[in-house]
Amino acid sequence: MKPIQVGLLGIGTVGGGVFNVLKRNQAEIMRRAGRGIALSMVADLDTARAQAIAGSQAQVVSDARAVIANPDIDIVVELIGGYGIARQLVTEAIEAGKHVVTANKALLAVHGTEIFAAAHRRGVMVGFEAAVAGGIPIIKALREGLTANRIEWIAGIINGTTNFILSEMRDKGLDFDVVLKEAQRLGYAEADPTFDIEGVDAAHKATIMCSIAFGIPVQFERAYVEGITRLAAQDIRYAEQLGYRIKLLGITKRVAKGIELRVHPSLVPAKRLIANVEGAMNAVVVQGDAVGTTLHYGKGAGSEPTASAVIADLVDITRLHTADAAHRVPHLAFQPDQMSDQPVLPMDEVVTSYYLRLRVADQAGVLAQVTGLLANAGISVDAMLQRGAGEGRGDEGTSEVRQTDLIILTHSVREGTMNQVIAQMQALATVLAPIVRIRKEELA
Amino acid sequence: MKPIQVGLLGIGTVGGGVFNVLKRNQAEIMRRAGRGIALSMVADLDTARAQAIAGSQAQVVSDARAVIANPDIDIVVELIGGYGIARQLVTEAIEAGKHVVTANKALLAVHGTEIFAAAHRRGVMVGFEAAVAGGIPIIKALREGLTANRIEWIAGIINGTTNFILSEMRDKGLDFDVVLKEAQRLGYAEADPTFDIEGVDAAHKATIMCSIAFGIPVQFERAYVEGITRLAAQDIRYAEQLGYRIKLLGITKRVAKGIELRVHPSLVPAKRLIANVEGAMNAVVVQGDAVGTTLHYGKGAGSEPTASAVIADLVDITRLHTADAAHRVPHLAFQPDQMSDQPVLPMDEVVTSYYLRLRVADQAGVLAQVTGLLANAGISVDAMLQRGAGEGRGDEGTSEVRQTDLIILTHSVREGTMNQVIAQMQALATVLAPIVRIRKEELA
Repeated sequence: MKPIQVGLLGIGTVGGGVFNVLKRNQAEIMRRAGRGIALSMVADLDTARAQAIAGSQAQVVSDARAVIANPDIDIVVELIGGYGIARQLVTEAIEAGKHVVTANKALLAVHGTEIFAAAHRRGVMVGFEAAVAGGIPIIKALREGLTANRIEWIAGIINGTTNFILSEMRDKGLDFDVVLKEAQRLGYAEADPTFDIEGVDAAHKATIMCSIAFGIPVQFERAYVEGITRLAAQDIRYAEQLGYRIKLLGITKRVAKGIELRVHPSLVPAKRLIANVEGAMNAVVVQGDAVGTTLHYGKGAGSEPTASAVIADLVDITRLHTADAAHRVPHLAFQPDQMSDQPVLPMDEVVTSYYLRLRVADQAGVLAQVTGLLANAGISVDAMLQRGAGEGRGDEGTSEVRQTDLIILTHSVREGTMNQVIAQMQALATVLAPIVRIRKEELA
Repeated sequence: MKPIQVGLLGIGTVGGGVFNVLKRNQAEIMRRAGRGIALSMVADLDTARAQAIAGSQAQVVSDARAVIANPDIDIVVELIGGYGIARQLVTEAIEAGKHVVTANKALLAVHGTEIFAAAHRRGVMVGFEAAVAGGIPIIKALREGLTANRIEWIAGIINGTTNFILSEMRDKGLDFDVVLKEAQRLGYAEADPTFDIEGVDAAHKATIMCSIAFGIPVQFERAYVEGITRLAAQDIRYAEQLGYRIKLLGITKRVAKGIELRVHPSLVPAKRLIANVEGAMNAVVVQGDAVGTTLHYGKGAGSEPTASAVIADLVDITRLHTADAAHRVPHLAFQPDQMSDQPVLPMDEVVTSYYLRLRVADQAGVLAQVTGLLANAGISVDAMLQRGAGEGRGDEGTSEVRQTDLIILTHSVREGTMNQVIAQMQALATVLAPIVRIRKEELA
């Protein structure tokens, strides 16, 4: 049988990986897929570089629309990224009856609903395993492997840049700014790292997993997004002393009132496997009602790990593109006419536990004031730690008032209630600096 | 559309789980699968108990062949286990044109070749996600999620009973026999625990993963199988002091000469995630040439985790049973006419590193003798530890000769060579007890 014909839009790091892996492993992939996969056409503005990567195997063009218009092309792989031209090209490819594979999490988290609807109408498949957690086959696990389960929650380290930064901050006791520069030097962070460090990239991925887990439309605009830029080395150290690590988690959870969808730094018990995922690695924990806890770990980015996911989608499409749509797995796991309208909850409605750090005057009665406010709001304290202010950072003597750090771990409480109490605490004359608040997840 | 009709052979722990999960989550599973799944018939010798579990939903019979003969049944789920009647029934079900789902690793590891060939001839699917690592969707990850990769090796904790025992031995410093009794009392080990503690169960699962990873026929008879019954608490403690944990690993690996397939206790660096998988949990590490390292963690046994895998197969079959065979994933990942004849290597040909413990006379020259033998064979030493004999076990003074424990970690060497050197060491007059040898895997 003639190999299935694939056209690539954009041949950067990932595109080069797709080329290399398909070339290196073509015999083995064909023995599995039962049919060859030929990357026969590439569109990139830099045609010289594209030709250098693609060699003589592929036709290189500068116009992506020439790939879409080519009737010999069966599958279009979009590796341009972003919501702009990528959105137009994916839509045009679908309308032209091409199957699409994309690693573009931003596009799917924001415009997934219209894209999947168009694909459904046109009877084509959109593969996006590479959009979440790189080489880890988490989309397949959620959509197919765990399909018997009512998913309860998902919590993932789904951004390698921030996990690298947090690992370094902890290992070396350094502050965020210092480590960010180091990460940029090593290529773990981009020149403009905003999307990573502000949590946006993780929120795109969490949004996609949320839809697949709970059968609701993608709605990135409702995700709560908080990055790691304000994390202090000091809090990482205090968390450690209390038996926790701080990780940037993408969390989505089904509760009685609706669905939680949030990305923020979280304390995680140090003994959990996911707390021990270091460097640029990714890991996703899925809690299902039948299976219990599963964890899926691997490289979340990089040329060949991402290519691994792209090619897995190519093989799936090679296998199923001539089958009718009922034989395929629905894009968002649930049949398009069986989606749920469960609301994504505002952050105030989220119930979780907290790490609080208060810089207070070291004088009698302060602790009573603070714990009194918590008690009035019905918030119970799980653990408490008192340390010399800015311990080990040499700023103990800079103020005229003797200061101390009060670290409190709370039990679960509604975020809205917690915010009110934090405001009350902040108003106390004995609280001398902005209160640090980091959420805490037991993941049990 | 009428629900797909499923018949269950054997309704014990797992069968009950399948019933419960399908009942509890039927709405959600149907929203995903696009079609209902009805467990309409159950065969069990204990019809009264079967009826109590199945309730009024299913017809209960004592004769499994009545299920196979029923033309309304689309899928037969075999949960009897073993190679005897289960083999006959699975074969008959296939010949009757039924799709089959089974959790029976023993059957597939030994008779998989004939079963998959029969299924291929008859055009039916045999799902066996539940046969390896319970609820972890590892078969799907290997067959589909990582299909772009040349798999380099797989190493897994794939038997919960032995991992529970090893965790307890380490935590509490207890010996194997004591912990086994405790495990039996708690239900983590069976009354006859032989298959688990001798490594047979893990070897069945490793055999299946080996075939899927490397495209060779299942050949359990060539697997090297060593259990945990001879492990001493002492060696767990020494390993710990050297930075290692001891785990029973199922390992399969592609090397130049062929395929390794082996189950035995292994030292693993304590910092690896898999070294921190405790209790009855399972985890499988897969090394692919494109994706790098992935790890898949979850419950490897139990009623509902196993049911989660069985139902995932039911959904896959529901989706694909009307598609032609080319649209389905081959049973062993590779197309049946594309299997490899790479040999499974005898254990003597395996290259790995070792932990050795020698009880030696505490006198001058012994160390030189021992290390001289290693050097003569070209085996280099990675680390060494000398400790008072039977440290902390109170048997230091039971002999007239002063004794000491010599613990040696070697670098990689052919097992055949290692065996020769161990024999030479054992023949030394200064070596006072049988040498303990445990393999060591860096998993990097």
